[in-house]
Amino acid sequence: MTMTNQQVLLSSRPVGKPTTDNFRLVQAPVPAPQEGQVLVRHHFLSLDPYMRGRMNEGRSYAQPQPLDQVMIGGTVGEVLESRHPAYAAGDQVVGMGGWQLYSVVDGGAAGMLRKVDTRHVPLAAYLGAVGMPGVTAWVGLVDIIDPRSGQTVVVSAASGAVGSAVGQLAKARGCRAVGIAGGADKCAYVRDELGFDDCVDYKAHRDLRSLSAALKQACPDGIDGYFDNVGGLVLDAVMLRMNAFGRIAVCGMISGYNGEPQPMANPALILVSRLKVQGFIVSESMGRWGEALKELGAAVASGRLRYRESVADGLAAAPEAFIGLLEGRNFGKQLVKLI
Amino acid sequence: MTMTNQQVLLSSRPVGKPTTDNFRLVQAPVPAPQEGQVLVRHHFLSLDPYMRGRMNEGRSYAQPQPLDQVMIGGTVGEVLESRHPAYAAGDQVVGMGGWQLYSVVDGGAAGMLRKVDTRHVPLAAYLGAVGMPGVTAWVGLVDIIDPRSGQTVVVSAASGAVGSAVGQLAKARGCRAVGIAGGADKCAYVRDELGFDDCVDYKAHRDLRSLSAALKQACPDGIDGYFDNVGGLVLDAVMLRMNAFGRIAVCGMISGYNGEPQPMANPALILVSRLKVQGFIVSESMGRWGEALKELGAAVASGRLRYRESVADGLAAAPEAFIGLLEGRNFGKQLVKLI
Repeated sequence: MTMTNQQVLLSSRPVGKPTTDNFRLVQAPVPAPQEGQVLVRHHFLSLDPYMRGRMNEGRSYAQPQPLDQVMIGGTVGEVLESRHPAYAAGDQVVGMGGWQLYSVVDGGAAGMLRKVDTRHVPLAAYLGAVGMPGVTAWVGLVDIIDPRSGQTVVVSAASGAVGSAVGQLAKARGCRAVGIAGGADKCAYVRDELGFDDCVDYKAHRDLRSLSAALKQACPDGIDGYFDNVGGLVLDAVMLRMNAFGRIAVCGMISGYNGEPQPMANPALILVSRLKVQGFIVSESMGRWGEALKELGAAVASGRLRYRESVADGLAAAPEAFIGLLEGRNFGKQLVKLI
Repeated sequence: MTMTNQQVLLSSRPVGKPTTDNFRLVQAPVPAPQEGQVLVRHHFLSLDPYMRGRMNEGRSYAQPQPLDQVMIGGTVGEVLESRHPAYAAGDQVVGMGGWQLYSVVDGGAAGMLRKVDTRHVPLAAYLGAVGMPGVTAWVGLVDIIDPRSGQTVVVSAASGAVGSAVGQLAKARGCRAVGIAGGADKCAYVRDELGFDDCVDYKAHRDLRSLSAALKQACPDGIDGYFDNVGGLVLDAVMLRMNAFGRIAVCGMISGYNGEPQPMANPALILVSRLKVQGFIVSESMGRWGEALKELGAAVASGRLRYRESVADGLAAAPEAFIGLLEGRNFGKQLVKLI
């Protein structure tokens, strides 16, 4: 049996915003798994902001995505054939299969493949609330912000896969949770469906003064923890409202991924307010995944942790969906359905 | 006996750089100490960059210096008369006596007066290496940077009271210590007399690229800890050279005190290099003073911790000396001799 794979390659490095021309859809035969390998049919591909950073050459926290190779990305799917004792055909798995329909994975490679239980948690959730984005939220909140009950936690990109989990995890810890999101629809969702205490629409506040005033109204006791997914003006506005000894977990700087310089307007506030500003990457906290996934899985299974998904249809739609993600056109976790 | 005090008041708030017109020298009678109070004759007044921040109105980490009141400041001196059981005439003390020749202090007020031992440590050192600046260096280095042997620690304003201690304490912990200072004289002092491994002259590197290249040369293994006394361009240049998981202790932003906006050029490096950037104020780490002063006092007494002093003569010289401090004209700890 020869199966045909579809793959999306990075064909050129974007300058500024990516375009569909930076990607190329190709077909290739699916290789037969060798001894110790597992063949996986992908059901969903995850699109995440970190991928933009990987498309650049040069120094970042990870190796650049090589040109003319399959784009990296998280996937969930089903084992079609296994030549590794830990897996069997029919197993549902999460892994880093990339932008393609099938992958052949070394079953023994650490962190590359993990069996998941879909009796109480939908398969796609392992790419979102019970996967890398959920653990990202958990690590930034628990290990860096470390909020106490009664404190105020703010998160940007609040309707997204990471942000929605940050606020709900903060609520579960007795905090006031305030989101920042783009547009009235997303803000209503963050407040009404996710249960945040408030949400500020950054599109209605285009300058520092206006955004900072809106945050003051939403956070009458100031801000003790900020989970930053965007940087730029939003970070500047939040810093003006941080309480003494506030903690800022720096998780993403979306607009910066497109290459614009993004200065921090007033770093002296780090001193004035004795802030801790800390960057982190969830893949470097592997020791925390177990505890995080336990809380996240239980919360999703019981309906306490809610989320939304934007699902693009078919691999060919992935580049356009990714560009939309960077522009905030998605609503919730951005997935690509592959089956 | 009626004694006449001399006092320097803040007569107006500086806009940008302070001038001598912002201060007023006045005479006043010295009040007799009441029950529980102590009369102190000041020998030295300490001038420190934090005083510039206090001269502004508005939000900072401390109350603004009130107008037409004696400028705040650390002092060392001798007890002339005590009506508090913990002190006796002849005791040598460190306190917050302000810009004046005499002060009358409540002997029971926490943190306002402390007896010191001058058998092995000179009195003036209690305003510097064995005082607030030394403890500031210790807390930022030990509690925030937390360096391991073999790591590289960089400090700006390296010839100053805080910076000189940071580098020497880092050397004592097995680190490579690299200073940043203004001018060849200060750099030679930092290297040759204080024993730093290297020192970069920021005046010879006026742009980001040049300063960053000089730091690369001085720090061939990158930078693991940065003790920031200045902010601005120097901070931007250091951030480009920070290793993954580097720690930046934000202690001062001298040029910012004068009101210019001081953006951070590339905060995305906090994420890319997973940095921790933390502001602190030494007076909020009172629980650490005991351990810090023990190490600092022993190191000064044994000659292992070296420092230099710039001494202005007489209270009337204090405003001009303070302005010089903000411009980096001092060399080492800036004091005013009052007796």
